[in-house]
Amino acid sequence: MKVFKGNMIYTKEPKRFEILEQGYVTVDDTGRIVSVSKEAPEGIETAHVVDFENHMVIPGFTDLHLHPNQYPNDGLGYNYELMEWIENYATPVNGLYKNEQITRRIFSALIEDLWRYGILHSVQFGALDLRTNDILFEMMIDSGLYCYLGKNHTDYKKDRHEVETTQESMRCAQYLIDKWEGKSPRVHYIMTPSFAPGCTEEMMKWCGEMSRKYKLPLQSHLDENKKEVGMVLDRFTDCKNYAQVYQKYHMFGNDIKTVMAHCVYTTEDEIQALRYAGVYVAHCPHSNCNLGSGIMPLRRYLDMGIKVGLGSDISAGHTLNMMDNMRSAMEMSKVLYVEEGEMPLSTSEAFYLATKGGGSFFGEVGSFERGYLFNALVVEDDAVASIGGHTLEERIERFIYNGDDRQIKQRFVEGKELKKPVFEI
Amino acid sequence: MKVFKGNMIYTKEPKRFEILEQGYVTVDDTGRIVSVSKEAPEGIETAHVVDFENHMVIPGFTDLHLHPNQYPNDGLGYNYELMEWIENYATPVNGLYKNEQITRRIFSALIEDLWRYGILHSVQFGALDLRTNDILFEMMIDSGLYCYLGKNHTDYKKDRHEVETTQESMRCAQYLIDKWEGKSPRVHYIMTPSFAPGCTEEMMKWCGEMSRKYKLPLQSHLDENKKEVGMVLDRFTDCKNYAQVYQKYHMFGNDIKTVMAHCVYTTEDEIQALRYAGVYVAHCPHSNCNLGSGIMPLRRYLDMGIKVGLGSDISAGHTLNMMDNMRSAMEMSKVLYVEEGEMPLSTSEAFYLATKGGGSFFGEVGSFERGYLFNALVVEDDAVASIGGHTLEERIERFIYNGDDRQIKQRFVEGKELKKPVFEI
Repeated sequence: MKVFKGNMIYTKEPKRFEILEQGYVTVDDTGRIVSVSKEAPEGIETAHVVDFENHMVIPGFTDLHLHPNQYPNDGLGYNYELMEWIENYATPVNGLYKNEQITRRIFSALIEDLWRYGILHSVQFGALDLRTNDILFEMMIDSGLYCYLGKNHTDYKKDRHEVETTQESMRCAQYLIDKWEGKSPRVHYIMTPSFAPGCTEEMMKWCGEMSRKYKLPLQSHLDENKKEVGMVLDRFTDCKNYAQVYQKYHMFGNDIKTVMAHCVYTTEDEIQALRYAGVYVAHCPHSNCNLGSGIMPLRRYLDMGIKVGLGSDISAGHTLNMMDNMRSAMEMSKVLYVEEGEMPLSTSEAFYLATKGGGSFFGEVGSFERGYLFNALVVEDDAVASIGGHTLEERIERFIYNGDDRQIKQRFVEGKELKKPVFEI
Repeated sequence: MKVFKGNMIYTKEPKRFEILEQGYVTVDDTGRIVSVSKEAPEGIETAHVVDFENHMVIPGFTDLHLHPNQYPNDGLGYNYELMEWIENYATPVNGLYKNEQITRRIFSALIEDLWRYGILHSVQFGALDLRTNDILFEMMIDSGLYCYLGKNHTDYKKDRHEVETTQESMRCAQYLIDKWEGKSPRVHYIMTPSFAPGCTEEMMKWCGEMSRKYKLPLQSHLDENKKEVGMVLDRFTDCKNYAQVYQKYHMFGNDIKTVMAHCVYTTEDEIQALRYAGVYVAHCPHSNCNLGSGIMPLRRYLDMGIKVGLGSDISAGHTLNMMDNMRSAMEMSKVLYVEEGEMPLSTSEAFYLATKGGGSFFGEVGSFERGYLFNALVVEDDAVASIGGHTLEERIERFIYNGDDRQIKQRFVEGKELKKPVFEI
């Protein structure tokens, strides 16, 4: 048994922070929380006590949507909209991965940055290529971070530079599942059809079946961009909307844990379908802004109880800094406040999205509650915060608006400190 | 004569970057640029050559609008709109400055951050209190950074917690002008009426007169928030719009160098007046989002040739990171692109605003052109950029989207390296 002592800050529910000034979190040997209290727990005299003093202790972040092989495109080409960006940036970058050493250097930088920004859990939209995914599985397991990772299926030829055959695409996924699923309690496979316009119907059907067969979650994209939505409706004339394509092939929630990125242009029917099927929405505000996609109706989703987390969407989004992604979600909601009087996202709501909201895709992570894993970050204030005599609620607010990775002093996974991953390349 | 060699990147005009790969900038003994060339200049054999190798060299940034005494509020209270934020955050923070040591600690942190982020030039909206401004003048001069700084006049009592008498307010400004104006070539006084709702008519008239008498520039706020605009129109019933109040008291451009922060809710008449009078607009996109103020019609101003620079608006804006402020300007313009089809701000345009656009308020800074001061930053790429084999245009784009202060390796002012300011407190 271990007892962590410090300023514990988390969100059980979106509407407010739970703040325990100099509180205690007791963790068992498996890393699960057995108690959270303001007073010292019984048996503290004989327990291993870790004292974080005046630092803030918060749950580790979850990034619900990122494309690891796009990392070298970070910050580039945002003069394009989605389909043109894919053609000019997202596709050509794959050429880099023919060289294994470069592949390892890129993923090493990415994983170090995930660690630096306290993204202890991430849902990664893998590359097309088998070898690239293979290397990333190996490196993610070595890192000690949690993730879901899946091979991207893009076997529908129209409008694509670089594609693969349906059979080859399936074979790769099968190989990766056989090799990696079950190898680590922290790293799991996720079925990853690129998006309806990039997949054959055979592939989509197969992805849904594989999810069921192996009890794997599934990720894809939905309603990101108007042109993309048009392409879907043009091709799938039997479907009333984009979501119905995924429903048709049994890829849309219900008995599958599904996450859909973006969901900007959802119709009323699609919103109801997201809720009914319990599908997660990965909200990617920076990406939707950078590529001029639009603003997701976040408040509507929250009001309806749809499950939402934040996605950096590296590299249509430009940063893994989850504080920056929270700020972006708040800023976009302020735009809708100004324009439509919508209730803006509060700091506790933004924090919830980045912790418990997205974290619940991984199970009991993202909060400090009994039964949750102690996957946590220790945060130091910046120089000015210590002058102002701020409350803990102000200190966490300040960190959300102004924080960077330098302030994250330690990361804990399952109650043990996770040191910076180092890869030999 | 000194010759700087490296990858020189700057914007003569907004629409494109000027990029000299391994170019040369020759600077005379006063720090002014005498030539910019792709080829080595004549006389290089005997000159003092500073080789920046493969780093990027860019002009130093200008922050056209920040409130130094608000720094401890950074990131706080953005659940409020403007007038409520002033009451709950901006006003109470002044209590901190009764203690000189705390005052010096806050300003030391602020000045270090200005330096870290490469903000070599800033227009600072000072505190009410004489002593607080006095200390900041002394510290800014010691720092070696350029700035305009003025005592905030808020002598109109209605709706204000903490005010001052008109006579006392004038006396303070006169004291600061007499003491500091002319003491340093880099730090100058700027007349600073808070905003029309916060000043008596006597004060506004006096500010305009003082600007003329001492040839001082003038700064204030214009059309930031709908409620504020309403207050102005209710009080100044003889004025057709907010700008006319400033015009009436001869504070609005023409023979005075004037900068107005925000300008979100300008009418067509006011836009014409801004242009006609050559008034600078300090665009503060983060602030306008944080306080739910609105989105400034930036493209319209640029199309009309109105002078625009960027303002962090510390602390209604949350960051001095000028790359982040550039990104915010681009993101807000993308929102208008999505909603109204407005041409989004390009990376070169955003860069221009943060360098030459705002810099021109200080004279010939913010670009690498003959006659300009060599006030420059040396920028190192992040780890991933060096993998991707990017062009210099991509490298600067990446820095704008993803850069932070750690990448700024050196700062030069008037051709000499400016080391980190250190204050004994």
